[in-house]
Amino acid sequence: MAQMQQTKNIAIVGTGLVGSLLALHLRKKGHSVTLFDRRPDVRKVEFSGRSINLAMSNRGWKALREAGIEEEIRELAIPLYRRAMHIDNDPVYFQNYGKDGEAIYSISRGVLNRKMIDLAEAAGAVFKFEEKVWEVDLSEAKLYTGESEKGNWEEYDFDLIFGADGAFSRVRHKMQRQSRFNYSQHFIDVGYKELRIAANADGSHKLDKNSFHIWPRGKFMLIAMPNLDGSFTCTLFLPFEGENSFESLQTEPAVQDFFEKYFPDMQEEISGFTKDFFKNPTSALVTVKCYPWTYYDKIALVGDAAHAIVPFFGQGMNAGFEDISELGRLEEVHGNDWEKIFAEYQEIRKPNADAIAELSYRNFMEMSSKTADPDFLLRKKIEKNFTEKHPEKWIPAYSRVTFSEAPYSEALKIGDRQAAIMDEIMQIPQIEEKWNSAEVENRILKLLQNK
Amino acid sequence: MAQMQQTKNIAIVGTGLVGSLLALHLRKKGHSVTLFDRRPDVRKVEFSGRSINLAMSNRGWKALREAGIEEEIRELAIPLYRRAMHIDNDPVYFQNYGKDGEAIYSISRGVLNRKMIDLAEAAGAVFKFEEKVWEVDLSEAKLYTGESEKGNWEEYDFDLIFGADGAFSRVRHKMQRQSRFNYSQHFIDVGYKELRIAANADGSHKLDKNSFHIWPRGKFMLIAMPNLDGSFTCTLFLPFEGENSFESLQTEPAVQDFFEKYFPDMQEEISGFTKDFFKNPTSALVTVKCYPWTYYDKIALVGDAAHAIVPFFGQGMNAGFEDISELGRLEEVHGNDWEKIFAEYQEIRKPNADAIAELSYRNFMEMSSKTADPDFLLRKKIEKNFTEKHPEKWIPAYSRVTFSEAPYSEALKIGDRQAAIMDEIMQIPQIEEKWNSAEVENRILKLLQNK
Repeated sequence: MAQMQQTKNIAIVGTGLVGSLLALHLRKKGHSVTLFDRRPDVRKVEFSGRSINLAMSNRGWKALREAGIEEEIRELAIPLYRRAMHIDNDPVYFQNYGKDGEAIYSISRGVLNRKMIDLAEAAGAVFKFEEKVWEVDLSEAKLYTGESEKGNWEEYDFDLIFGADGAFSRVRHKMQRQSRFNYSQHFIDVGYKELRIAANADGSHKLDKNSFHIWPRGKFMLIAMPNLDGSFTCTLFLPFEGENSFESLQTEPAVQDFFEKYFPDMQEEISGFTKDFFKNPTSALVTVKCYPWTYYDKIALVGDAAHAIVPFFGQGMNAGFEDISELGRLEEVHGNDWEKIFAEYQEIRKPNADAIAELSYRNFMEMSSKTADPDFLLRKKIEKNFTEKHPEKWIPAYSRVTFSEAPYSEALKIGDRQAAIMDEIMQIPQIEEKWNSAEVENRILKLLQNK
Repeated sequence: MAQMQQTKNIAIVGTGLVGSLLALHLRKKGHSVTLFDRRPDVRKVEFSGRSINLAMSNRGWKALREAGIEEEIRELAIPLYRRAMHIDNDPVYFQNYGKDGEAIYSISRGVLNRKMIDLAEAAGAVFKFEEKVWEVDLSEAKLYTGESEKGNWEEYDFDLIFGADGAFSRVRHKMQRQSRFNYSQHFIDVGYKELRIAANADGSHKLDKNSFHIWPRGKFMLIAMPNLDGSFTCTLFLPFEGENSFESLQTEPAVQDFFEKYFPDMQEEISGFTKDFFKNPTSALVTVKCYPWTYYDKIALVGDAAHAIVPFFGQGMNAGFEDISELGRLEEVHGNDWEKIFAEYQEIRKPNADAIAELSYRNFMEMSSKTADPDFLLRKKIEKNFTEKHPEKWIPAYSRVTFSEAPYSEALKIGDRQAAIMDEIMQIPQIEEKWNSAEVENRILKLLQNK
């Protein structure tokens, strides 16, 4: 048999962050790459007013480094070393994320996407915008695009097709029609709205620039992340129904009262927030799980198309980028054997995607309600204290997810074990007084040995 | 405002059992009813060779009674008063299902469906076979049908549309594109194959006619249910992969060996089973959950389209028929207010559909593995003994699901409580000897008071 052709003719459906990164990875290996998107070129249109700023962390940087574009992207990013908690009118309370120098990085989604498309195009990837994929022939790796579902379609023939087309992926939709394809989409009862804090007149930031700002308010929550231009992109997470909800806040005075009552420290932003509230769309938040992610050596899903998660761990993009890292690693191992690459890819990534979905969902509970709870803050203080004394014995789940490249599934498992230990510690009488005592420290050490 | 028109122009997508029953209910209320099916008229084609016989129980009979067709259907049904357990070469072991006279009823799906279409047609419902619905306009209650997705479509305008189009419902598929529509499809790793035991030469049944026959074999299982013509429809439930699986059984000798090894008491059927094994298709088993089930006063999903379940409790059709009972009851209560009818329908039915999904999945575990386990059989014996002495204090979950019309969600909750009690009872030392002692009886009575 003739040696199989080493470089492939590859389609990527979707030109978002994961699609663009995949294009760069594949171009580096010499493959031909064509990207399709039903939307117009994000470089030529205004941003949607529905995006949440990204928090790039270690997994994301690793994938960018492998693609050779880490330095370019660093220029777009602002390091956030800590959480800044805005609790009612109390002074802002800061919690460092990790050890000295450890940070997550705030990047505007739109700015990053434009840059990555520029870089992928410069690397030789071909972009076809406003060309919607209506049909996929899975076994032949063919795509059909056109003006409308019932109009004339253009047929494209590829060796491989990647679905990087997001939570409502058309490629996955086609795979879903197969028997034995497991699938779930679950919406939480909380939606979100993008708001904005403008820069000061001199271009500086109105709030501490190197913090991730949180206003936890029980069933709802506001967050703010800085942009390079001095502004902050804020996200209001709010229930769809009930008291203080998108349903109950329908008029300008009601929205203004709401902001005044719950965000008194943001007094001067309230008129802007209120305008944004009515200008910007309300978006829903979904967790998507499915399996399998691949079809023989022809089709693979990556990023949100395979595993959309709620944004409360800041890992959606990082998890998608890690898919691409893993594919790159497997291509190194298996060369041109795409059936093997795809089989191992889904087997390795699926449990990790499930784990970060679970961790993200839990963080939704934690961020919105518990960050204002004294018991929770005491727990965090005890853990932090212990971590500082025994950094090798207690890596917090947050750090393992954010500042390491250890599998998400490991972070979930060890996090569960730590939570069980902390449940016992919190039962110690007068724990409020002796939280930093030798007794507590020794008890944790003992529990770590037993479990 | 003029009084709203009392009778509606209603479409039902799907002409299966639930669609046909709904047509009868709606015709009784005087509505115009048109049914669409992409398949040919089941009365004019051979059966598919992929069906599992139905087990009609109380909920099903109730809905048929309300539709005025109970007597006609009784003629098609064979009462099954007991399980007949075929364990290796042991004598067949019989377990009565309920109290004297309580039975489930074996009916051939195809025979029943033909009859119900006849009855619905006679009642004035219009059937359009081989007419596939491609598109649904949810807010306008319009249907679009045609030869192909890209061909010319016929437009139909209705007041209400019901999706009774099964586990892979097209109507639901359209609803799924809405934001905040929760959906999951989960396939189990076991598939099934229809097999057949022919009648004796004199037309009599080869096995006890009034039993539900089970050959539990751990990871796989054979069942047989009688037909009116003396034959049995058998179903082999078998893993897709692994030892003893559809994947491993690829050749005739392998299949024959498999039947000989595991079903020695069926020696004379083995050649027929082997033929059927290769003739009939292999089917997958899925649990489908979704929410919402309705769209304002326009669209509602019923039966498998809203809640497909695995067949191991024999409740799929019964649960679908109960949807129709509930809709009928709500139409009595709310008259012409379909928005209210649909809102209450989904609110009442959803927790019950989730409960029977869970119970059915658990029965899959129980039937395939535990029915051959001595501990399990002892548990059942203790429960049976106690039920006989205190019938008002301990209604088994199976009876509550099968022989009552109490909500499925209640059966699940009470079943969990009973299981917790039996877990404690099975811990009693020497329970094997004293299973029918006063000690055990009193212990159960005490636990029932405490919990």
